[in-house]
Amino acid sequence: MIKTRGYAAHDATSPLVPFEFERRDPGPRDVHIEILFCGICHSDLHQARNDWHGSLYPMVPGHEIVGRVAAVGSQVKKFKVGDLAGVGCMIDSCRTCAPCSRDLEQYCVEGATWTYNDHERGSERLAFGGYSDHIVVEERFVVRVPANLDLRAVAPLLCAGITTYSPLMHWKVGKGQRVGVIGLGGLGHMGIKFAHALGAHVVAITTSPGKSADAHRLGADEVLISRDEAAMAAQARSFQFLLNTVPNGHDLNPYAALLDVDGTMVLVGALTELMPPLRGSSVIGGRKSIAGSGIGGMRETQEMLDFCGAHSIVADIEMVSASGINAAYERMLRNDVKYRFVIDAATLKE
Amino acid sequence: MIKTRGYAAHDATSPLVPFEFERRDPGPRDVHIEILFCGICHSDLHQARNDWHGSLYPMVPGHEIVGRVAAVGSQVKKFKVGDLAGVGCMIDSCRTCAPCSRDLEQYCVEGATWTYNDHERGSERLAFGGYSDHIVVEERFVVRVPANLDLRAVAPLLCAGITTYSPLMHWKVGKGQRVGVIGLGGLGHMGIKFAHALGAHVVAITTSPGKSADAHRLGADEVLISRDEAAMAAQARSFQFLLNTVPNGHDLNPYAALLDVDGTMVLVGALTELMPPLRGSSVIGGRKSIAGSGIGGMRETQEMLDFCGAHSIVADIEMVSASGINAAYERMLRNDVKYRFVIDAATLKE
Repeated sequence: MIKTRGYAAHDATSPLVPFEFERRDPGPRDVHIEILFCGICHSDLHQARNDWHGSLYPMVPGHEIVGRVAAVGSQVKKFKVGDLAGVGCMIDSCRTCAPCSRDLEQYCVEGATWTYNDHERGSERLAFGGYSDHIVVEERFVVRVPANLDLRAVAPLLCAGITTYSPLMHWKVGKGQRVGVIGLGGLGHMGIKFAHALGAHVVAITTSPGKSADAHRLGADEVLISRDEAAMAAQARSFQFLLNTVPNGHDLNPYAALLDVDGTMVLVGALTELMPPLRGSSVIGGRKSIAGSGIGGMRETQEMLDFCGAHSIVADIEMVSASGINAAYERMLRNDVKYRFVIDAATLKE
Repeated sequence: MIKTRGYAAHDATSPLVPFEFERRDPGPRDVHIEILFCGICHSDLHQARNDWHGSLYPMVPGHEIVGRVAAVGSQVKKFKVGDLAGVGCMIDSCRTCAPCSRDLEQYCVEGATWTYNDHERGSERLAFGGYSDHIVVEERFVVRVPANLDLRAVAPLLCAGITTYSPLMHWKVGKGQRVGVIGLGGLGHMGIKFAHALGAHVVAITTSPGKSADAHRLGADEVLISRDEAAMAAQARSFQFLLNTVPNGHDLNPYAALLDVDGTMVLVGALTELMPPLRGSSVIGGRKSIAGSGIGGMRETQEMLDFCGAHSIVADIEMVSASGINAAYERMLRNDVKYRFVIDAATLKE
């Protein structure tokens, strides 16, 4: 067994505290990774605080994991000791159902095994995430990390990156298209970078006029302030594709009005009730679609990292120590982060 | 001017009463149709009673119109006197915008001119619909009617028919697919017929166990009772396409759960707020889409009628006289119609 130091929530209200536990020794297909950095996703906070109910404690959050391979099982082919490696939101799935067979493990019919706040597959053992210094994961759910990128800023790609990259690829966003990215947070800032790299004309759509300069710096060609009704009306019916990264329930109708005939808005952030309610007329008038997309499969996660390597794309980050996780959560609640906190796993040893 | 007898609503609460008015003499591109039959669409009732606000009175409802050509303008090419002809939900549009150029006049950027409860294009004159014995419409917005069909039962095809045919074609429903049709009313019964004719395996999804036999008669291969939670759970993730014909706000989440990965549910009936609200997780889990579709363009409306001629498809109807319109509305409010009332225009002369 591998002695592991982490940070854990023990209930929905207490701060996260240091927590020691053991990882399994790597089996024949396992990769043992010494974690170097782990991003803090907004969903970490939701789950640590039981916002979505059913949280399992103790909980070691974290699913934006990068590190260096410390050991590999005898049948592992893609990795050798010393390689850079990443782990995202999933650590397992049934591997045989129709979605798994299409490399869409996140939509596994039996349910994927999530990196934390879940049980290890076929076991009563809790799955512990990346706010820790070691992790052991089966090879299929480990990705290679390009060597040319700032490893600290690669970590958020494992969730925020793939979550935004996957729908842009699936809906074939590219040159000659006007694409709106709604919300400028951890997901939105990656959406802007990817859509820009894919050659689209990118419009950052945000409630905050103060984010304009930043949106342009990240790659937006235009900024649309969603609270400015005249500006919104002026861009009505002008988008074929909208990537909606807003993390909470919100009114979809004003954004649907931005879509042109046959346009699609894809939700990637808001899992809860969308209030005020969608009106049927918002999609019937113009044959519009409201779709959703959840992270991405392992093959596409690897493609995304390779794309990032080729285009020198990483997240914009702020480093925190393990002891700073709780303060980082408080700042996230105030939207005071540009655009992702990343934990330096070395500080777990302090 | 053409003296015309109709039935009109004069406000939101009074019954419809006989109403005499004049149609314009046909211009060079106009077709003058002697109306024979007109279907009663649920939206007639909504608009007569101002349920959607902004109704224009006096209102002569009716947009499921069939009749015989009585006169044509000098430049009319598709029709001659004596031909059968139909008019649906639109009588005009800008004809030059991007959607009009794609034969999607219903999504005209300037707004289509609706057959009633609207003003004639570029005019202060009210547009009066098909609860009347004459209508004059520009050729582009008139369709040919196959001669082999029961003309009375053709009328509802002009709205209920095209509204369900268009999304089935756009989303390429056909052989080898499992297709659900939600709601078994005027729209739903046409959706079942079309999906069956296109070769799909059709599942009628209804709240009413009493409609099972009828659903099978109309072409359904299976019936799923939506209030039966166990039956709904058994069919979770089993549909690539759902045609949702429910005419009022309702909970989309249980139906979204029926969709397989990458599946689409298309709304064609519910224009208002969809309560209880959609949850983001209902589409994010499985990359699902909630889309909308409104009637169909004129070219596709013609294709639909030609398809009906080739496949001997018409609506299931019950005839009413003009003086029976108000009683028919009351029965529609009780869902007591299988599946469309059709007015015999000859009774306007009584």
